[in-house]
Amino acid sequence: MSATANAAGGSSPSNVASYKILDSTLREADQWATNPLSRDTKVAIAKALDSFAVDYIEITSPSSSEQALEDSKAIAALGLKAKLHAHVRDLDDAKKAASVDAGVRSVGLVVGASSFSSDVSHEKSMEKIQESAVEVIAYLKSQNVETQFSFEDTFRSDLVDLLSLYQAVKEAGADRVGINDIIGGTTPRLVDDNEELTKRKGVINGDIECRFHDETGCAVGNAVTALEAGATHIDTTVLGIGERNGLVPLGAFSARMLVAAPEYTKGKYNLKELKALETVVSEAVNINVPYNNPVTGFSAFTHKAGIHAKAILNNPSTYEVFDPAEYGISRNVAINSRVTGWNAVRSRVDQLGLVMTDDEVKAVTAKIKQTADTRPLTIEDTDNILHAFHAELKKA
Amino acid sequence: MSATANAAGGSSPSNVASYKILDSTLREADQWATNPLSRDTKVAIAKALDSFAVDYIEITSPSSSEQALEDSKAIAALGLKAKLHAHVRDLDDAKKAASVDAGVRSVGLVVGASSFSSDVSHEKSMEKIQESAVEVIAYLKSQNVETQFSFEDTFRSDLVDLLSLYQAVKEAGADRVGINDIIGGTTPRLVDDNEELTKRKGVINGDIECRFHDETGCAVGNAVTALEAGATHIDTTVLGIGERNGLVPLGAFSARMLVAAPEYTKGKYNLKELKALETVVSEAVNINVPYNNPVTGFSAFTHKAGIHAKAILNNPSTYEVFDPAEYGISRNVAINSRVTGWNAVRSRVDQLGLVMTDDEVKAVTAKIKQTADTRPLTIEDTDNILHAFHAELKKA
Repeated sequence: MSATANAAGGSSPSNVASYKILDSTLREADQWATNPLSRDTKVAIAKALDSFAVDYIEITSPSSSEQALEDSKAIAALGLKAKLHAHVRDLDDAKKAASVDAGVRSVGLVVGASSFSSDVSHEKSMEKIQESAVEVIAYLKSQNVETQFSFEDTFRSDLVDLLSLYQAVKEAGADRVGINDIIGGTTPRLVDDNEELTKRKGVINGDIECRFHDETGCAVGNAVTALEAGATHIDTTVLGIGERNGLVPLGAFSARMLVAAPEYTKGKYNLKELKALETVVSEAVNINVPYNNPVTGFSAFTHKAGIHAKAILNNPSTYEVFDPAEYGISRNVAINSRVTGWNAVRSRVDQLGLVMTDDEVKAVTAKIKQTADTRPLTIEDTDNILHAFHAELKKA
Repeated sequence: MSATANAAGGSSPSNVASYKILDSTLREADQWATNPLSRDTKVAIAKALDSFAVDYIEITSPSSSEQALEDSKAIAALGLKAKLHAHVRDLDDAKKAASVDAGVRSVGLVVGASSFSSDVSHEKSMEKIQESAVEVIAYLKSQNVETQFSFEDTFRSDLVDLLSLYQAVKEAGADRVGINDIIGGTTPRLVDDNEELTKRKGVINGDIECRFHDETGCAVGNAVTALEAGATHIDTTVLGIGERNGLVPLGAFSARMLVAAPEYTKGKYNLKELKALETVVSEAVNINVPYNNPVTGFSAFTHKAGIHAKAILNNPSTYEVFDPAEYGISRNVAINSRVTGWNAVRSRVDQLGLVMTDDEVKAVTAKIKQTADTRPLTIEDTDNILHAFHAELKKA
């Protein structure tokens, strides 16, 4: 089976340990947020992205407005390590984006379903698209700009059309081609088929960039599967923001890759910057970090059930897929619950600097469980119970 | 490749159009929420789950406390269509769970990593686990209870151990076996390997239930891949609640399956009940619905960028993977943005009952864009601009 063949280094080399991240937060936020982002906010986000060390920072295309051009210049002036990337739709756009002072070093040409006009034949449309794509790519190469070509809705496009276009733009010098799931409709298996096919046909021997929307919850699964099947670049946004359900969330993707390729991921990206980056972005677009956000959601490293908490204290890897310290985050064993175990309480007693025997800890655990059965307990409540119990012990 | 083989009806039959849902919201909420759920809340959630028509409702094991047993009786008394399911760890648990008045019709025996005691040899431990598992399964079958056997941490377990256990419990009459990713560490490709292997070896000819945690964002991708590879039952929770990053979220999974198997999914489950169900649960455990929650998140069906909004108005399927009406939800085209297009504004003008020519709409669109460039606009602001512009027109 292909899955095994790839995992074992089969025909399509896996790029799980050599992937690159193109982050589109700035572009998507501009389109998506209720309030347009100020230049200062854009600069702050760009700096935070660069601190995390994403490879590319996609900005709103400088060709889209005077303000976007000025914003682009301001970000370019920061001298970030990440390459600025912008997408364009035609030669005019490309000329504006590739102008020297815009600071854009990588340009993606996106051809969309809306490019098909209904009053000409399909064949004529495809010819026109190809001609125009080749012209844009050739122009960008002449300006020494890195180029990417993609078809907006790859998974619902005619395969022959798609491969013909890819072939033509590769010949015109495109550095990489893009595969887009604009509607969030694909699955890991379809991605695997698509990538395998694209590579196997020998059409694409170079880089493949993937952009997955998340309408049906598969964006991260699709991304890792794409890398396993030979893709090289993954598009992300911080917290997954973007139109409708957004794109591959950078945090969840980084967690996935920390597990899949720990050395590469830790060596290349500054995971400890994730939380600050998510804070800047969530404030800029006025959203809450989802309670179940991988890595930084409030319950991500909270353990409560007695049996789990015991195992966590003995050996965190029993119930943790990676150490939260990789992200500079601490785990938290909650003890304010009916199902708490005495091992977790022991840990809290020690944290609070209280001295108790195991039997005493067991007794106070019973007290906590009893109280939790009758009313909700906060962590402050349980700390109060522990302190009161300890005071009683000292008196006795 | 296996992916294609399965998609085309290869060796392992895909169960994408015949899956069952076991929802664990009640059990997970009990372990996870800050406040324990009241009986009334549990009853409300159970009813809402039954309205959605999940196949199984997992409750906190009646063996875990007197309160849990009474809760179980209260839920059983509702006479729901869904089967009540509970998990047990040993024969004592099983006897309590299978007692007639508890109303439990399906029991899962979960054997965990913590079952391995360190002071006996691995072989001895495995022998003991198998002996005890067979005893529990045989007892449950004698009580005419549906039985499931699973190993808590399937993806990190020794394959020979795992298959031996599966074989033994199948022989003892287990109705299905479970595959659990307790740490959220697996990927769609590993799931595919695991399921294929399990089926191909001929060890399991019956049902396979999968429980995926979501620490690295792959739970839904794993679930659909598991069904494609022959799994039959998927464990979910509403909004994906559960320890750490929780499980497969019911809403995202339903959206995935609505795309993968529309007829089965719409025929079997009451998708229009999702929003009410998520509301009951989010209030019970005191969380906000994440902004990017598939289907019901606030931006899930909001379209803003000009080019997208135009296409949506012409043909929604261009940028929507399914019609929100399947869930009883309306789409929303936002026009209060710098990148709005006149088609979207036309749509709002019509909604407001204002009469304008296309040229007039284009003129007011320019006005909206201009204003949006200088300050943030709410939908009320843009409506005011439209009304004022319309009043000017009438005066002229």
